[in-house]
Order: sequence, then structure tokens, then C-alpha cells
Amino acid sequence: MVNVAILGFGTVGSGVAEVLTTNSDLIGRRVDELVNLKYILDVRDFPGSPYEHCFVKDFSVIEQDPEVDVVVETIGGATIALEFTTRALKAGKSVVSSNKELVATHGYELLQLAREHGVSYLFEASVGGGIPILRPLTACLAANEFDQITGILNGTTNYILTRMIRAGLTFEQALKEAQDKGYAEKDPTADVDGHDACRKICILAALSFGEHVYPNQVPTEGIRNVTLADVAYADSCGYKIKLLGRAIRQEGGKVCAFVAPHLVPCENPLAGVEDVFNAVSVTGNAVGDVMFYGRGAGKLPTASAVVADVIDIAKDKKRDHHNQWGPGREDLVVSPDILTSRWYIRTTASVEQLRSACGEVQPLARSGAPAGETACLTPPMTEPELKERLSHVELLSKLRVLSE
Amino acid sequence: MVNVAILGFGTVGSGVAEVLTTNSDLIGRRVDELVNLKYILDVRDFPGSPYEHCFVKDFSVIEQDPEVDVVVETIGGATIALEFTTRALKAGKSVVSSNKELVATHGYELLQLAREHGVSYLFEASVGGGIPILRPLTACLAANEFDQITGILNGTTNYILTRMIRAGLTFEQALKEAQDKGYAEKDPTADVDGHDACRKICILAALSFGEHVYPNQVPTEGIRNVTLADVAYADSCGYKIKLLGRAIRQEGGKVCAFVAPHLVPCENPLAGVEDVFNAVSVTGNAVGDVMFYGRGAGKLPTASAVVADVIDIAKDKKRDHHNQWGPGREDLVVSPDILTSRWYIRTTASVEQLRSACGEVQPLARSGAPAGETACLTPPMTEPELKERLSHVELLSKLRVLSE
Repeated sequence: MVNVAILGFGTVGSGVAEVLTTNSDLIGRRVDELVNLKYILDVRDFPGSPYEHCFVKDFSVIEQDPEVDVVVETIGGATIALEFTTRALKAGKSVVSSNKELVATHGYELLQLAREHGVSYLFEASVGGGIPILRPLTACLAANEFDQITGILNGTTNYILTRMIRAGLTFEQALKEAQDKGYAEKDPTADVDGHDACRKICILAALSFGEHVYPNQVPTEGIRNVTLADVAYADSCGYKIKLLGRAIRQEGGKVCAFVAPHLVPCENPLAGVEDVFNAVSVTGNAVGDVMFYGRGAGKLPTASAVVADVIDIAKDKKRDHHNQWGPGREDLVVSPDILTSRWYIRTTASVEQLRSACGEVQPLARSGAPAGETACLTPPMTEPELKERLSHVELLSKLRVLSE
Repeated sequence: MVNVAILGFGTVGSGVAEVLTTNSDLIGRRVDELVNLKYILDVRDFPGSPYEHCFVKDFSVIEQDPEVDVVVETIGGATIALEFTTRALKAGKSVVSSNKELVATHGYELLQLAREHGVSYLFEASVGGGIPILRPLTACLAANEFDQITGILNGTTNYILTRMIRAGLTFEQALKEAQDKGYAEKDPTADVDGHDACRKICILAALSFGEHVYPNQVPTEGIRNVTLADVAYADSCGYKIKLLGRAIRQEGGKVCAFVAPHLVPCENPLAGVEDVFNAVSVTGNAVGDVMFYGRGAGKLPTASAVVADVIDIAKDKKRDHHNQWGPGREDLVVSPDILTSRWYIRTTASVEQLRSACGEVQPLARSGAPAGETACLTPPMTEPELKERLSHVELLSKLRVLSE
């Protein structure tokens, strides 16, 4: 028998309890052993819950119970979750987490701690909800040198952008709708300003390139400034606006990582990823491009990924699994300033002014454009070069174009 | 050191040699040991090959060398490949295969043999080329009861259909083009008649539902009868024609599995899978829908999957991995006759005749339709019901519609 303790009985924690219970028979068959939910840690009371006998309020009950093999951390944040994860690993228990903030900020030290104690620290659910991404990266694509990772990593912002594109809602209207539907939090900062996507690209970059990438090293821009005018211009030339997290391998073992809204060409499968769906595209030197697609959040999809990690550990209790990366360093991450790409710009300057500043621009049109508004796609250049060339021009919008 | 022998130096075999050599350093880091290419078995001579020192012509050299840990079988077919795989497993060597025919017809017995000898039989490359599918199914989605699998599993037919849709080529013209580009064989039967897709859906169904599904149990229809008229009518109502392999869980532990061209709604991500790309969509009871997308064939993508299996074995030499399924049985697979769906039909009957036979049909139009041609989408019904209702009508085309 493999005994599991869940920390935190919120959306994900209760989903994990539900999947462990509902699919108990098949999980037992796949593990060749019963996987038993022994404890749920929560400060609240849940009278009448089918798991009532499991609840405890004191973490040390779990910590000191030698029967507990796996601790599932779904508390979130990087304070108490860090403390409990550290104590669980030190107590010789494997930990499974859906907590991207904790992994992105303390992943290296927790992986080291797991290694020292001969246990596992797994976090498939921290990126892409239920979509299998991390294990495919580290196992199924292990024969590849990775060149780049590009992801639609946040369902809330993808929902907002989809509603702007499909229904012509403004950012504020679409955000309100997302909040009403429960897709966005009351304080939507972590989502709309790109912090959530940033944590996820840090985890993907660390696994792909082998060194910890810290969120504060990754330039991050959200979608607050994307307007319906930009959506319309993008549509006019065959692009969709998507918030992308990107990590690109550089010469000399460095990584260019950043989060920003992009114009994505409609031929790219990422352009077709709508609503709250997520997708991660990976380029390897043998496999070429592969893409993983599905629901990036939600109770049961996220629980599906958590329980897969539990099963992985349960099959082979004390094995140290392949999630590993190095400590990271200050000069690991380079700014996207080095990347050459085409740019979408919207300005008050004339096409002639833009052409004399940037060369052969591609002018764009939209119905209902006010007089004096110009939009175009520039030839490929870096962002500093673009800024210098347009230093005399008032920029209303500026978005990087993802090349095909 | 982990020693590898490759059987067959064709496209896939030479790709495996190339990936093992090119990415040797990173593979060594990921395995924590050198993975060494020791033998290549081929009846031909390859003078001047960088692997010249590896070639042998006699399988017993490999069979009897206790240093060989992993045998990579890329011979294809189910005769000599079966013999060598059997002998390798009996000699205590793990086997990695890209051979879907062998796995689909003899997978159960070979998995049993591997188990008896404490070694592994892995075949990630047999489905979807380089796209990670089989391990994500069995590991990352292990917490799920699977409801259905739907895949675009054959790159050649998807290329042909894409060229019919995008460039207006007839089936014959598109097939010729695919042959000229090396995407289709001189004898294209295995691809265009659906046999290749059939083998792959058998493997996916066996892994998902736990019992061997044999190709001769799976009704299989290819794309020879798809016309440009059908493509145009499908387009007029927001659908793309795709060859799908499907496996759907039924009550009582049965599986409905079949291969047939379908009308796929454009909102479904499978509709956007073009050219030689493959994609597999999986529905689990916790995760919902996830999709895996990438190049389904080709030298290096396929080699990427083969080498991932080699790495998996090399990390943990004698472990019996999780590919396992039961022996299958005659009454396991049920016919798609039980499935209710809408149908696309093209006939010489009038809309009124169709309406009186089938109820509220949705008439379709295309430019250049000859007089007397009618096409429509029917209300949902089974295929036997459709046939009975239209028994008096000459059917020019009939395709199942994938529901959204």
C-alpha cells in the first residue's frame, strides 16, 4: 500500500482526492498496489465531506507518520508551501506539487534536497495543467538537444485574447467576462501581467536547458496594452495575437527567455489554440517541432497530472526521478534584445515616415481606423534597433511577430 | 557503458545511428553512462560509412554478445523482424522497435516474452514517429480512465488530403506528388487504404484499454474514394476531410475501433493538422481532451523516439517497463455500426427524397456542381440505419461526421 497525504483542500487538492477515489481501481492496477489517501491537511473544517476521516490540521502528524510515502502539495505560494515541502523531503517523503511559484523560485534547492534524501520531487501539474509536458520533455524527447520552447502557458489571458478576437470585446470587457466565469481571479495581476506564464517558462527552460532560470531574470510583459485595433490589424494580415512564453538556446550555454504578446501566423498551430486551452511547442534537433495541447488549468485536469506523478513514485517508491537541473547563474539569461524579428507597430506617423525610418514596411488596414492612425509590419530587426529608428515617432502599439 | 545493436540500416536505422552519434554527449549526461553503438546488422555493405566498423551480417554475433544491452529493430515486417526480436528477448536483451506491423500483430506475445526474461520491449516510434504518445498515455495520463482516442495517424494520406483541400489536386494527382516527394511509396496501398493507420490505432487501443486489438478486427477504409466534390462540400459547411483512426471505450469492457475518412469540424484542432503532420487526441475522464502533434514519420523524428526508448532502458537496464496489455479476444472489438453520428452524403437523389428518407437534412452547395448532384448532412443515426433509409438511393459518397 502506498499512502498519500494532500496539503491544502482547495480546487486542486480536492480534485486530487476525487481522482484518487474515483479511479482507485485502475490506479491500483497500474501501480500493482493500493494507493491510499491517508491525510488531508487544511486549517478549515469540512463536516460531511466524504474524506472527513482524513483531515488533520497539524503538519507534523503527516511528517512523523512513517507510513506516508507521498505528500501532495497544493497550497500554493512560496512560504508555508516551502516549509512543508522542505520538511516532507527531509522526512524521506516524496513530494508532488502543482505549485509553479514554488518550483520556479526554489526548484533547484528542493530538487537537491530530494536527491540528498533519496526521494522524488515531481511537478508535472505546475505547467500546462493536465497536459503531459514535463515528463515528455525529459523522457520521450531525451534524445534531443532542445533549440527552443514556445508556449501559450496561461489560460486566462488566452481566453481574454480569444474573446477580443472572436467577439470584439475590449480587454476590460473580456477580463470582466473571464472573472464572471471563474477563469480569472478578482485580482488578475498574476495572469494578465504575465507572471504566471513567466513562472511556467522558467520551469520549462530549466528542464530543457539544465540550469535554474529565475522569474526575476525573465523580462515579462502582459496583455493589458493589447487593443481591439491591434487585434483587427493582426487579423488583416493573417495573424492572431497570443501571449507567448519563450525560451531559446543561445551560443555559449546561455538562454534567451521572455514573456510577451506576439503576432502568431495563422499557419502556426499555436494560432489555433483558443479559449482557456494551453499549448507548448518544443523544437528538438532530432524530432523537429512537436506540440502538446490541452486544458492548462481546472480541478480535474490538474489533478490528473498530480496523480500521474503520484503513480510514478508509487510504482518505484524511493527512486530519484529525472527532474534535475543545475543552480542557475546571474549571466545565464540573456535579454530578447538580441532577437531579430519583424515587428507590428501602430503609430501616428505616416507610412512614408515609417518607410524612411524602417525600410520596406508592409502597411496594414482595418475598417474604422481613425484618421492619422498607421499600422504596419516592419522588416526584421532587433528591438533596440526598432526603438532607435522610431525614436522620433509616437508608438501606440508594438508587438513582436513570431516567425513561421 | 550501454551497448546498442541496430538491426537494419535503412532510413530509421541510419537515423538512429546518426542521433546516437550526434547527440552522444547529451545522451551520456542524461543516462549517466556512455551509450555506445556496437553493431549494425545489414545484409548490404556500406563501404566508407562512418559506422563501417559496426557492421555485421550474422545476427548470432549480436545475440551471443553478452555486452549488448539493447537491440533496436528497424527491419519492418513481421517475419525476420519477429524472429530476431524473439531471439534477442530470449537472450536477455531489451528490444526497441519502430515496427508497427510487428507490434500490432505480435505485441502481446513479445511483451510477455520480455516480461519473462526481465527485459523491456518498447516501441514509442511505432506510432506518431517522433511525437511522444505511448509513454504519455501510459505514464503521464495514468490517472485517467480513457474514453476515446482519435488520431491522424498517417502522414502520407494527410498530405494527399491537404493537397486536395488546399491546391485542388485530385486524389491521383496528389498521390503522384506525394510519391515524387518521397512521402508515398511506389506501392501506396499500406498508406492510402488505411492499413498503416489501422496498425497504429491497434497499438493505441491496446495500450489505452489493456487488451491486444488485432488489425484484422478493425474495419478499415482508406481515402481512395474521396473526391474533390466531397472536399468542396465539406469546406462549404466548415469541415475538413481527414482520415481518422478511432478507438472508443464501450460498456462491458469492449472497444469500438475503426479507420475511416471523416468530416472534421474546423473548430476541432485535428482539422488544422496539415501536410505530413500527425496528431493524436486522447480523452480521459480526469484530463479531458489533450492532443499531441508533430511529424509522424521521417528519419530523425522517428530516430528521436527510438533513442528515447534506448535512453529509458539504459537508465535502468533490467527494469520491465510499463508497456503491458492482455492477450485480446475475439469479441473485444465491436463494429462502428453501433455509433450514432451525422453523415455527409452525395447522391443523385433530390433534397426532397433525402428529406423524406432521413428527416431534416442540411443541404450543401458547391460551385460547379453538375445537374442532378445533391449533397447534405443528415441528422444523427447509425450506419445500418442510414443504409436502410437510403436503400433506394444511389450513393456517390458517404462519410461519417466527427461530432464536436
